[in-house]
Amino acid sequence: MSKGKVCLAYSGGLDTSVILAWLVEQNYEVICYIADVGQEESDWASVEKKGTSLARPVIARGQMRAAAREGCQFVSHGCTGKGNDQVRFELTFATINPEIRCITPWRLPEFYKRFEGRIDLLDYAAEKGIPVSSSKAKPFSMDDNFAHCSYEAGVLEDPDVTPPEDMWTKTVSPLNAPDAPLDITIHFEKGTPVKVVTPQQTATDSVELFGLLNRIGGEHGVGRIDIVENRFIGLKSRGCYDSPAMTILRLAHISIEGLVLDGRVISLRNAMSQQWSELIYQGAYFSPERAFLQPSLDYSQQRVNGQVRLRLYKGSVYVLGRSSDEKLYSEEDASMDSLTTFDPLDTTGFITVQAIRLKKYGMQMTEAGVKF
Amino acid sequence: MSKGKVCLAYSGGLDTSVILAWLVEQNYEVICYIADVGQEESDWASVEKKGTSLARPVIARGQMRAAAREGCQFVSHGCTGKGNDQVRFELTFATINPEIRCITPWRLPEFYKRFEGRIDLLDYAAEKGIPVSSSKAKPFSMDDNFAHCSYEAGVLEDPDVTPPEDMWTKTVSPLNAPDAPLDITIHFEKGTPVKVVTPQQTATDSVELFGLLNRIGGEHGVGRIDIVENRFIGLKSRGCYDSPAMTILRLAHISIEGLVLDGRVISLRNAMSQQWSELIYQGAYFSPERAFLQPSLDYSQQRVNGQVRLRLYKGSVYVLGRSSDEKLYSEEDASMDSLTTFDPLDTTGFITVQAIRLKKYGMQMTEAGVKF
Amino acid sequence: MSKGKVCLAYSGGLDTSVILAWLVEQNYEVICYIADVGQEESDWASVEKKGTSLARPVIARGQMRAAAREGCQFVSHGCTGKGNDQVRFELTFATINPEIRCITPWRLPEFYKRFEGRIDLLDYAAEKGIPVSSSKAKPFSMDDNFAHCSYEAGVLEDPDVTPPEDMWTKTVSPLNAPDAPLDITIHFEKGTPVKVVTPQQTATDSVELFGLLNRIGGEHGVGRIDIVENRFIGLKSRGCYDSPAMTILRLAHISIEGLVLDGRVISLRNAMSQQWSELIYQGAYFSPERAFLQPSLDYSQQRVNGQVRLRLYKGSVYVLGRSSDEKLYSEEDASMDSLTTFDPLDTTGFITVQAIRLKKYGMQMTEAGVKF
Amino acid sequence: MSKGKVCLAYSGGLDTSVILAWLVEQNYEVICYIADVGQEESDWASVEKKGTSLARPVIARGQMRAAAREGCQFVSHGCTGKGNDQVRFELTFATINPEIRCITPWRLPEFYKRFEGRIDLLDYAAEKGIPVSSSKAKPFSMDDNFAHCSYEAGVLEDPDVTPPEDMWTKTVSPLNAPDAPLDITIHFEKGTPVKVVTPQQTATDSVELFGLLNRIGGEHGVGRIDIVENRFIGLKSRGCYDSPAMTILRLAHISIEGLVLDGRVISLRNAMSQQWSELIYQGAYFSPERAFLQPSLDYSQQRVNGQVRLRLYKGSVYVLGRSSDEKLYSEEDASMDSLTTFDPLDTTGFITVQAIRLKKYGMQMTEAGVKF
Repeated sequence: MSKGKVCLAYSGGLDTSVILAWLVEQNYEVICYIADVGQEESDWASVEKKGTSLARPVIARGQMRAAAREGCQFVSHGCTGKGNDQVRFELTFATINPEIRCITPWRLPEFYKRFEGRIDLLDYAAEKGIPVSSSKAKPFSMDDNFAHCSYEAGVLEDPDVTPPEDMWTKTVSPLNAPDAPLDITIHFEKGTPVKVVTPQQTATDSVELFGLLNRIGGEHGVGRIDIVENRFIGLKSRGCYDSPAMTILRLAHISIEGLVLDGRVISLRNAMSQQWSELIYQGAYFSPERAFLQPSLDYSQQRVNGQVRLRLYKGSVYVLGRSSDEKLYSEEDASMDSLTTFDPLDTTGFITVQAIRLKKYGMQMTEAGVKF
Repeated sequence: MSKGKVCLAYSGGLDTSVILAWLVEQNYEVICYIADVGQEESDWASVEKKGTSLARPVIARGQMRAAAREGCQFVSHGCTGKGNDQVRFELTFATINPEIRCITPWRLPEFYKRFEGRIDLLDYAAEKGIPVSSSKAKPFSMDDNFAHCSYEAGVLEDPDVTPPEDMWTKTVSPLNAPDAPLDITIHFEKGTPVKVVTPQQTATDSVELFGLLNRIGGEHGVGRIDIVENRFIGLKSRGCYDSPAMTILRLAHISIEGLVLDGRVISLRNAMSQQWSELIYQGAYFSPERAFLQPSLDYSQQRVNGQVRLRLYKGSVYVLGRSSDEKLYSEEDASMDSLTTFDPLDTTGFITVQAIRLKKYGMQMTEAGVKF
Repeated sequence: MSKGKVCLAYSGGLDTSVILAWLVEQNYEVICYIADVGQEESDWASVEKKGTSLARPVIARGQMRAAAREGCQFVSHGCTGKGNDQVRFELTFATINPEIRCITPWRLPEFYKRFEGRIDLLDYAAEKGIPVSSSKAKPFSMDDNFAHCSYEAGVLEDPDVTPPEDMWTKTVSPLNAPDAPLDITIHFEKGTPVKVVTPQQTATDSVELFGLLNRIGGEHGVGRIDIVENRFIGLKSRGCYDSPAMTILRLAHISIEGLVLDGRVISLRNAMSQQWSELIYQGAYFSPERAFLQPSLDYSQQRVNGQVRLRLYKGSVYVLGRSSDEKLYSEEDASMDSLTTFDPLDTTGFITVQAIRLKKYGMQMTEAGVKF
Repeated sequence: MSKGKVCLAYSGGLDTSVILAWLVEQNYEVICYIADVGQEESDWASVEKKGTSLARPVIARGQMRAAAREGCQFVSHGCTGKGNDQVRFELTFATINPEIRCITPWRLPEFYKRFEGRIDLLDYAAEKGIPVSSSKAKPFSMDDNFAHCSYEAGVLEDPDVTPPEDMWTKTVSPLNAPDAPLDITIHFEKGTPVKVVTPQQTATDSVELFGLLNRIGGEHGVGRIDIVENRFIGLKSRGCYDSPAMTILRLAHISIEGLVLDGRVISLRNAMSQQWSELIYQGAYFSPERAFLQPSLDYSQQRVNGQVRLRLYKGSVYVLGRSSDEKLYSEEDASMDSLTTFDPLDTTGFITVQAIRLKKYGMQMTEAGVKF
């Protein structure tokens, strides 16, 4: 007799294929949910390195909608018990439907004690007639989505081991990138990239332009990241990321913001984006605190309009120039030579007043014998 | 009759040479102070892009010491009235000696109305017999120190104009950099770089290793920055920086910190470094608030020991690996496969407790008709 | 011949009366703007002690509207040259109309050298036939508005001098307050107080309820504050505030927020409110950074609905209880005895996972010889 | 045969008495650790409401030292499975000795299913011959230490129920407090209270002065707090605190800091103290992040010297005045009348420069049709 209906986040890989068969074996009815992860986020300043982080709640939400449609009592996923993704999945499940029950095979002794290594999984797959695409194990695990490809575990666990060159799937080696640089222009409206222009083509659809940037960035070796992260459960973990489009967009976005956003807003926004990023990383996309930060972050992008010219070359992106119709930057005012809009005497007052407080501090320290 | 003794921060350039002559003409006795700016800061995570910012208070302090030794009643500098450097100089003066008086020619109408352009300065220099090294004006202004070289004004004032290739003095163009990458290792003790090893040489003295990094970084085109800044007086300003050693050290420092610093400490430290950087940028190095932040920042570096392997190649620096004797990172613990130090069931409890709060939020939102 | 039209922020006091006459004497046409300051702000958690701070931009905006209507080329105010209010007025003027010119008598030598003390002002008033209400000078200065009354300067400049009992205008001494406490209820909708119920009356109009709280708070001696502030120009200054309604509302608002806002939102919101308050204090109400913070602060109040029961008694306000239809607080869940919604084993996993990171830290410290 | 040695945090109450007997019944050797909690913390600005929070790690550390001395393999405590104290205890245990095992009866089914209510505990106590002091159960639970007494659970779980008057153990009702106020003086050295002077006595020993403040504060009804907290495990919980000495010291400390600390340092320090408080509340006293914040917080107190005069009266504390030999506050400088150390024209420059940025913002908004 059926124990109930499970909606499984299914990737097509070995793990979730085995989990699918195992759930059926345990007398569950299983519905597979396959996500097509397209990012629609606009806060480019924050999302780099969070691709994976953002993908999870989006998948989990889609999965919960499917589970509701299909009348499932359970959801399930194939994440391991030490990683971040399990947290991101399950916190999203809980927020959207506190009644849903989650089956987490990699944290169930009856599962993880039975499948102690890749061999066990492959044997089981063979036994159940599950087709497995990769005949040979990679010496690390990887997760690919539209935003980037991430790599961890296996040989990467030693943080002093340089990743094997053939690991990277989205970028050529900078050493093998073309000798000729590629100059492009990215246009932003309200903080969102709306057009990418290369010498060969122009993309305006968001999926198309993201794909274009991934392709040309990858061809020029742009976007390889190798860091030691701090997993939510308190362990350090070395991760590598292959993220051409995100790397290019992040630099372009910072650059256009520098031109059109007020300096104090940038400072406050940076601190807030840092908090936002940490929440996303920790699986709290669907949370009251993320919802709280969002309105101000969205507001900050209302005037982020303009274009940035960039050069891609052998692993790097460079800003060549940026422009905007917004009026916060003024050549006339910024000019060191021009005094038409500026009386230097005002600066004297400005500095003198600033110094009032510091003079008191200086006197206090001097009296206390502190030598500057 | 002498109006008193002035200690002038003298760079040897046209501006301060003219100021020197002009002060003498105004019947001041002038003592020139020439600074040799060597950086001794250890907070590498914060100091990139602050080279200039840090150099100013160091120069100003040396100048104040010289002024005290020589019995000067005045100090003076050649900074313009719209820039940041005047603020950094004068706030430092005020803190160290609230009684000192500062002569700021570029904010005095009798000076700036007399010298309205470069021609006026050159004419005056010729008249006074002042030798001027650069016979031809650059179409921008630059400031060179050991940390980096900065460029602004002139043709750079249009933020969409790509800087002329011959502007950069410390770096070759990435397009002209060697085809062979250079792999190096940087060793850190208590957060400070103490050894740089290249295939050809090893440097351990701090000035020597910084110079070495500037040289090899420059040869490989590493360290060009082009940004729009927010000057302290509220204007936006485009600045370019040529900063090979700082760029390399910053990446290396972040990388070793990632390996050996606790994740929450990194998060708190990043926010604090951001505040520290803004203070330095705004001329508040000698201030009670900077002094307040320093002890915790210093404390954070006590265990930042280890080495980072890096690759320099055509404008970029890449991390190849990092290692340390510190014990915060453990391959055994981080390993996705190993369960010897970890019970997956704990994660279930961990996530379940996290979800308590989010379930309440989810129910509240659902009741309010919010659709996730 | 007229030098132009001035819109003067006129309070009816001695200073602005003299300024009015003096401006006329200087051949300006003067239009007096008298503000009726009613607060309409909803962020009660932030506005205490900022009453004055908020009043200024509101007055200044009204004054600018009047100036525009009347075609004035100038605005003017009676603030002194060391205070905060001048900054608040003038930054608001500049934001709203960068072309407007501001006449600041207390910073003009021709004015402040002519009127060196109160006697000079009174003599001039007599000479010009200006009626002056207060025949005798108070030994301090005060500023009264609907939100509160502030006192500073004069005898208050010694921060160790207890303010004279007859200084306070909005509150009786707690020692003379009634022996019977007064219990009231305040209702909030979306963070805004919408109803105040006392045993004698009910107020629902915002001005009426604020007035009611000022009256009953004042009768019970609630709302006296005596602090040393840090003025924007860098000086410390002792100020006293008489603020019954604000004091009561602030406690009530914190109390209802504690019941209905998520804990992490409260933590983030508190940090943001602190930034907001500092901006207001510094005259940056009409600024891009304040506008940036506003949307998230507003969002946080959407579910702040409920009522708080309070007791006023001899200078204090106490919370007696609070309730709400919002569902974030659950007696069943909070109950230490109830395990129906809670499995204690989850807590074990929760704590075990938290401890992973701390164990590593403990081992590192122990190895380093640090003794806890 | 013994299962091993347990060091139990023993309070003498019913719960830990029963746990003691039960552990013996389970064949453990039990060593009881009784803590005498005296606070030695100096950051008075942060510790209010954290009394309990700080007491736990101090007890847990003492317990771990006793466990090490006695060669225990286990530690145990009597905290419930929903509260904060269990987290504080166990995180401290884990940091100090990652090998120690913790027995948590209230999270063990064999214990909490056996003792489902107070009756079960009393029956077991009677059966085992355990003397139980309180013959009648209170309708709430309480925790008393030197810093304060906290109350929660039972009738308090309804946040709209006013606590019963006889609940409070450290304070008389403000309504029953003396009609005559009591004026006292508190002296601080480096941020720490070192002397309390009342009309009747003077205390200088830290324990003695804290006890004195608790006594006189309690007599005057000072220090009752009633709030809804956010427990670490994500639940909201209503708690009441009786905390006379802490309430008085906190106000005094804020007041002396206002006089002697630089304004910007106060602002940065407040944000940091908030983070520190949250860490303590969450049981992370012995953590790398708390250790990171400590040096700057300690540094901030180096010049916090002076005295504060206060009045206790019917539930309230008022500041009457404060003084210090530190030089940050100057009557001469603060005086609105004095211009000897101040040129009002400087303020004009100061404000004009501030306005540069705001004028640009104003123009941008106006152009965009935003009406201020």
